[in-house]
Amino acid sequence: MTLKLGVIGTGAIGQEHIRRITNTLSGAKIVAVTDVNAENANAVIENEKLDAKFYEDGHALINAAEVDAVIVTSWGPTHEEFVLASIAAGKPVFCEKPLATTAEGCKRIVEAEVAFGKPLVQVGYMRRYDQGYRALKNVIDNGKVGEPLMVHCAHRNPTVPSSYTGDMAIVDTFIHEIDVLRWLLNDDYVSVQVVAPRKTSNALEHLQDPLIVLLETEKGVRIDGEIFVNCQYGYDIQCQVVGETGTANLPEPSSVILRSEAKLSTEILVDWKQRFIESYDVELQDWINSTLKGEVNGPTAWDGYAAAVTADACLEAKQTGKIVPISMPERPDFYNKSGALVNS
Amino acid sequence: MTLKLGVIGTGAIGQEHIRRITNTLSGAKIVAVTDVNAENANAVIENEKLDAKFYEDGHALINAAEVDAVIVTSWGPTHEEFVLASIAAGKPVFCEKPLATTAEGCKRIVEAEVAFGKPLVQVGYMRRYDQGYRALKNVIDNGKVGEPLMVHCAHRNPTVPSSYTGDMAIVDTFIHEIDVLRWLLNDDYVSVQVVAPRKTSNALEHLQDPLIVLLETEKGVRIDGEIFVNCQYGYDIQCQVVGETGTANLPEPSSVILRSEAKLSTEILVDWKQRFIESYDVELQDWINSTLKGEVNGPTAWDGYAAAVTADACLEAKQTGKIVPISMPERPDFYNKSGALVNS
Amino acid sequence: MTLKLGVIGTGAIGQEHIRRITNTLSGAKIVAVTDVNAENANAVIENEKLDAKFYEDGHALINAAEVDAVIVTSWGPTHEEFVLASIAAGKPVFCEKPLATTAEGCKRIVEAEVAFGKPLVQVGYMRRYDQGYRALKNVIDNGKVGEPLMVHCAHRNPTVPSSYTGDMAIVDTFIHEIDVLRWLLNDDYVSVQVVAPRKTSNALEHLQDPLIVLLETEKGVRIDGEIFVNCQYGYDIQCQVVGETGTANLPEPSSVILRSEAKLSTEILVDWKQRFIESYDVELQDWINSTLKGEVNGPTAWDGYAAAVTADACLEAKQTGKIVPISMPERPDFYNKSGALVNS
Amino acid sequence: MTLKLGVIGTGAIGQEHIRRITNTLSGAKIVAVTDVNAENANAVIENEKLDAKFYEDGHALINAAEVDAVIVTSWGPTHEEFVLASIAAGKPVFCEKPLATTAEGCKRIVEAEVAFGKPLVQVGYMRRYDQGYRALKNVIDNGKVGEPLMVHCAHRNPTVPSSYTGDMAIVDTFIHEIDVLRWLLNDDYVSVQVVAPRKTSNALEHLQDPLIVLLETEKGVRIDGEIFVNCQYGYDIQCQVVGETGTANLPEPSSVILRSEAKLSTEILVDWKQRFIESYDVELQDWINSTLKGEVNGPTAWDGYAAAVTADACLEAKQTGKIVPISMPERPDFYNKSGALVNS
Repeated sequence: MTLKLGVIGTGAIGQEHIRRITNTLSGAKIVAVTDVNAENANAVIENEKLDAKFYEDGHALINAAEVDAVIVTSWGPTHEEFVLASIAAGKPVFCEKPLATTAEGCKRIVEAEVAFGKPLVQVGYMRRYDQGYRALKNVIDNGKVGEPLMVHCAHRNPTVPSSYTGDMAIVDTFIHEIDVLRWLLNDDYVSVQVVAPRKTSNALEHLQDPLIVLLETEKGVRIDGEIFVNCQYGYDIQCQVVGETGTANLPEPSSVILRSEAKLSTEILVDWKQRFIESYDVELQDWINSTLKGEVNGPTAWDGYAAAVTADACLEAKQTGKIVPISMPERPDFYNKSGALVNS
Repeated sequence: MTLKLGVIGTGAIGQEHIRRITNTLSGAKIVAVTDVNAENANAVIENEKLDAKFYEDGHALINAAEVDAVIVTSWGPTHEEFVLASIAAGKPVFCEKPLATTAEGCKRIVEAEVAFGKPLVQVGYMRRYDQGYRALKNVIDNGKVGEPLMVHCAHRNPTVPSSYTGDMAIVDTFIHEIDVLRWLLNDDYVSVQVVAPRKTSNALEHLQDPLIVLLETEKGVRIDGEIFVNCQYGYDIQCQVVGETGTANLPEPSSVILRSEAKLSTEILVDWKQRFIESYDVELQDWINSTLKGEVNGPTAWDGYAAAVTADACLEAKQTGKIVPISMPERPDFYNKSGALVNS
Repeated sequence: MTLKLGVIGTGAIGQEHIRRITNTLSGAKIVAVTDVNAENANAVIENEKLDAKFYEDGHALINAAEVDAVIVTSWGPTHEEFVLASIAAGKPVFCEKPLATTAEGCKRIVEAEVAFGKPLVQVGYMRRYDQGYRALKNVIDNGKVGEPLMVHCAHRNPTVPSSYTGDMAIVDTFIHEIDVLRWLLNDDYVSVQVVAPRKTSNALEHLQDPLIVLLETEKGVRIDGEIFVNCQYGYDIQCQVVGETGTANLPEPSSVILRSEAKLSTEILVDWKQRFIESYDVELQDWINSTLKGEVNGPTAWDGYAAAVTADACLEAKQTGKIVPISMPERPDFYNKSGALVNS
Repeated sequence: MTLKLGVIGTGAIGQEHIRRITNTLSGAKIVAVTDVNAENANAVIENEKLDAKFYEDGHALINAAEVDAVIVTSWGPTHEEFVLASIAAGKPVFCEKPLATTAEGCKRIVEAEVAFGKPLVQVGYMRRYDQGYRALKNVIDNGKVGEPLMVHCAHRNPTVPSSYTGDMAIVDTFIHEIDVLRWLLNDDYVSVQVVAPRKTSNALEHLQDPLIVLLETEKGVRIDGEIFVNCQYGYDIQCQVVGETGTANLPEPSSVILRSEAKLSTEILVDWKQRFIESYDVELQDWINSTLKGEVNGPTAWDGYAAAVTADACLEAKQTGKIVPISMPERPDFYNKSGALVNS
C-alpha cells in the first residue's frame, strides 16, 4: 500500500522532502503539489519527474480526494492555517517547525485535534530521530547513569548571516534543544533564565552571541544550554546528561581518525545539514509507516505547543534577565493516550 | 520506473534482502521467488505480503519474462550456476559472496560476462558501501596521508561456533579484508604469508586462532591483517592506513560516551550484523539505481575472481608457512572500462 | 645551597610534604618541626630519619635562627597566626589552604606583607602546578581558541563522608576552581549565583548535592561550575574553555586504552590524591627554587584573599539563591609588581 | 646519605644527567667528571656550579676514592671498557645504551659481573620507567586482557638526518622496542623477520624507510613492529598488546583537547625528548635509590646482552630477508636471583 501525499510549499526543505520520498524512502508517493509560486511548484514536478498534480492553493490540495496525507513546508506564518485545514479534512499532516508562530496558534491546533478525536498532526523536530540522540535516550532510559540530575549542552554554528536576529537564537536554534531535551528527559520545563556572556567579536553589532539558557524541569533537572552561533570552528552539537551514577554524552559524529601534521584529529562538521541529514530520512519513513497504520509516532501537536510556550518564556527571560516561570495547561488525556513520544 | 526482481534463495540473508527492498529501499519490487525449500519460499511470500510468484527453480525464475534482474542468495555451491544462467539470459545479477566456490568458477563467470559484452554481475561485498570505509577511502584518495605504504588491520569476532573450520578464517572472514583493501588501495596483491601466533585458550582444539596474514601489493604496500575470531571482547574491525605523511584509521562506530564505574567508555559492538547492517541498505539501493541505468557500480565479477585467487593463495600460505606468490591474468579491458569500482 | 625548612603541623599533609622534600625534591631539608601533638611530631622526626629539631610551638620554630623558611600545614584556624608571625620574622612562608579562615584574616596578612615590603607568602593552591592546567593555560594564552567567553567545568568526587557539610562544597571543594580559573583566565570575579539541581539520592539527608555555581568575571566571561561530590563513578575534574574561535578542554589523565568486555575504555581515577599528586611535587620544588632566589612565584597572599572573598559570596549566593556581587579592594601595586602569577 | 657520583662523558646526555641529578633529583651529587674533551668537562663543572673534581680519564675517575658509583655517558665504543673497569673496581655503574657495541662485548660484561658476584650494572633503557609503559605492564600483569598473543607496535619519527644509516633503524631506534617488549611480556625472542614496505619518498636515497620487524617469542607471541623514521607527522610511539580477552594500548601522551578549525584534536609530539623526558628522571632517581641500597632494580647487563643479540639477528634478517633464529645462552642464576626486572 502506498501513501499518497500532497506537499504545500516547494521551497528548499519542501524539495528535499519530495526528493527523499521519491528516491530514497519506501511506501509513499507525491501526488499533489502547491506553492505560492506556481511556477516553482510546476518546475519541481517536472524536474523531479513527479506523477503529481499542481493545485492552486493549500486548501484545494488538502481537500483533493487523491491526497491521503499532507506535508506542510510552506512559510512559517501559514503553517497554522494549513494544519487546521488538514485536521478539518480529517487528514494526517506532517508540519515542519514551527507548528504555528505563536503559542496561541499551537493551542488552537491542539484543541482542533482533540475535538477531532484522532491523532493527525506530527511536527518536524527531527532530532528525536537522530541515531545519536536515540542512543543517548536509550542509555538514560536503561538507567546506565541513574536518574538525570543535570544536562550540559551546546548548540554551536560556525557563523550566521546578518539576517539572523537575536530572537532566532531561541526560536530557530535553541528550539531544537527545547524539544529534544524534553523528550530525552521525559520531563517538562518549569522555569528559565538567560545570561549573556562576553560577546564574541565575530558577531554582528546587533547580536548578543553567545547566550546561556538555564532551564529547570518539573523533576528538578537543571539544564545549561550554550547557544553560540558564530563559534567559527564548526557545527557542533554537544549534550551531556549527568545522572546519579554517571554521565552520558551524545556520540560525536563518526569520523576517520587522522594522525597528521602533529595532530591526532577527527573532523568536526561545518554544515548542519550533514549532521542531521539522515534523521530526516528516518523521521519521514517513520511518519509514512505510522500514517499507514493510522498512528502518530513522532512529536505531536502538544509537543509543538510545549516548545512554543517554552520559547516564549526564553525570549522574555532573555529580554528581562529574570527567572521566568513556564507553565503549561494540564496535558489532555488525548495526548497521554495516543500522542505518545517516540521511544517512550 | 520500478525494477522487478527475482530472488533465488530465501534463507536468512535472502529474507533480509527481500525485506529491505520491500520496506526500506526505493525503486524495486520483488516479483519472483524460489528456494530449494518451496514451502519456505511460499511462507516468505505470505509473511512479507509480497505480490510475487513462486518459481520451481532458479532457471525458471531467471528466464521469467517479468523478472528484470536477479538476486542470488542461495547456498554458495549453486552461485556459479545461477550467475552464469543470468548472464546467459542477459539479466543483471546481484550475487552474495562467494561469486563461485572456486577461482576457476569465478573465471568462467568473468569469461561469460566478457563474452556477453555488457556488465551484468555485482558481487555482495558490502564493506565498500560502509560509511566508515568510504570516509577512509576519501581521505586516502584526497592525499591527506600521502601515498599509502602500510596497512595494519584486524578482524575480530567474539566467538565462533564449533562448525567454524580453519579455512573459514580466510574464505569467510578475511575475504572481506581481501576485497575491501584492494578497493581501498586501488592496488593488487602479489604475495602472501601467514603466521600463527600463540593460540588463544578460547579457541576449540581444531582451530588455530589468531592468525596474521601478511600481504604485499603491486605498489609495494605491506598489509598485516590480524584474524582473531575468538577474541571474546567484541566484534571489532580495525584498519589503519599509514601513508607518507600521516595515518588514517577507520572510524569507530558511533557510540554514547559514558563515564561510569571509574571508566570513560564507548561501546564495542558484539554482533557483526549491527556493524554493517546499514551498508547492506546502501549497497542494494546503489545496485537498484545502477541497474536501472544499465550499469554496474559495485564489486564486479573480476573483483570476485581476484578475491578467490587471493583466498586460494592465503590458504596455501597458511598451510605451508611459505611466502606464496599471487598472480592474476591481465585484467580484460572490459573491466577497465565498465566494471569500475565504487568511488574510483 | 640548601634551604632549611621548619614545618608547623605534622598531620597527613605535613608528613607528605616532609617526605617529598626529603626523598624526592632537590635543594631543601627539614631542620625544624612542631605540632600541637609533640609525640606525633617527634615520631615523624624519627620515622623519616630527619636531622631536625622539635620545637615547642610554631612561634619558637618560626623564630629559630636555623630556619630559613616556614611551611604551615597545621589546623586551618591557626594559619593566619603563623603566617603573620612568619611575616613579622621576615621569613618566607608556604601556607596550605586556606590562608586564613576568613576574608578579614586574609586581608590582615595582605596588609602585613605589603607593610613588610617584600613578598614572603605563598598559598598552597596546587592546581596551578598541574601539568594539565598549565597546558590549558598555555593554549589559551597562545590564542589558540581566541578570547575566552565561557568556561564549563565540573568537580566530581565519588563520595564524601557524613562529616562533609554543605559549606564545604564551596570552601573545600570549589575553592580550587575559584583559584585556578582566576589564574587561568587572568581575570577577576564580579558576581555569583548558585542553583540547586535535583538532589542525588546518594547524598546524605543534610547535603544538597549537586550544585551549580555561576560566576561572572570582569571581562564578562561566564563560568558554570558543577560541584557533585557523590557522583559515584570517580574523581573527575573537567574544564572546557570556550573562546571566540574554538574550545579547549583540560586533558584527561593519561590512561591505558582498553578494549575489553564490549567496551573501549580508559580509566577514571577514584582518588583525588592520584590526580594531583605530581602537582604537589612541582609546586614545592618551584617554591624551594623561588625562595632560594628571594621570590614568590606561586599563588600570593592576594590570591588567597581573593579566593576567600569569592568563597564568601558563593556561600551567600548558595543560601539566598540571589545573584551576589563580588567586590575586592583595588589590588595594591605590591602584587602587581611582585606577586605575579605563575606563567604570567 | 648522599651517593657520590662520577660522570664519564659530558656531551649532551651527560650534561642532562648532571643537571637532573643536581637540580631535580634527590640523594646524589656529582663529585667527579671526565671527558675526552677536558675543556668541555671543566666548562660543565663551572656552568653547573658543581662541587666536583675533573679527572684525566675514565679509569682515574672510576678508581677515585670519593666516587661511590659511575655514570657512563661517553661515546658508545668506550662503554664496554669503562663498565668493565667499574666492575673491576666493585663500583655500581649506570651505562647509557648500548652496553657495548657488540654482543660479544656485552657477554664479557655479563661474565665479569657474574664473576664479581654482585649486581653492579644498569643499562639506560629508560622506557621501562615511562609512566605509560608501566601502566600498560600493570594492565597485562593483572590479566586484564588475558595472556598476550600479539603485539602491534610502531616507532615513528618525523625525520632523520642524512647521517642516519640503515642499521641505525635497528640499533638506535628499534632497540628500544626490543628491550621494552621483552620486559613488557616477560618473554624472550626466538626468531625475527624483516620486511620492507613501499619506500616513502621522504627518505634519503640510501635509506629503506619504513621497515616492519616481525618477532616471535618463546611463548609464541607475535610482534609486528613498524619502524618509520621519516613519517613527517610527529614522534609517535604506539603499542597494542592483544591478549586472549582484550587489547591494551599504550596511553597517548596527555594533551589539551581542542575544537578548532573544523577539527577535534589533540597534539602529537614532534620531539622524542618531550616524550620520554620524565622517564629519565624516574630512571635515575630509581637507580640512585637502588644503588644506595646495594641493588640493581633496572635493566641489567643481561638485558643489555639480550638486546644486542636480538639486534644482531634483526640486522641479519633485514639484509637477507630470511627468518633468522635468535638464541641466547642459558640465563645465569645470577640474573634470575638478583638482576630482577623492574616491576617483576
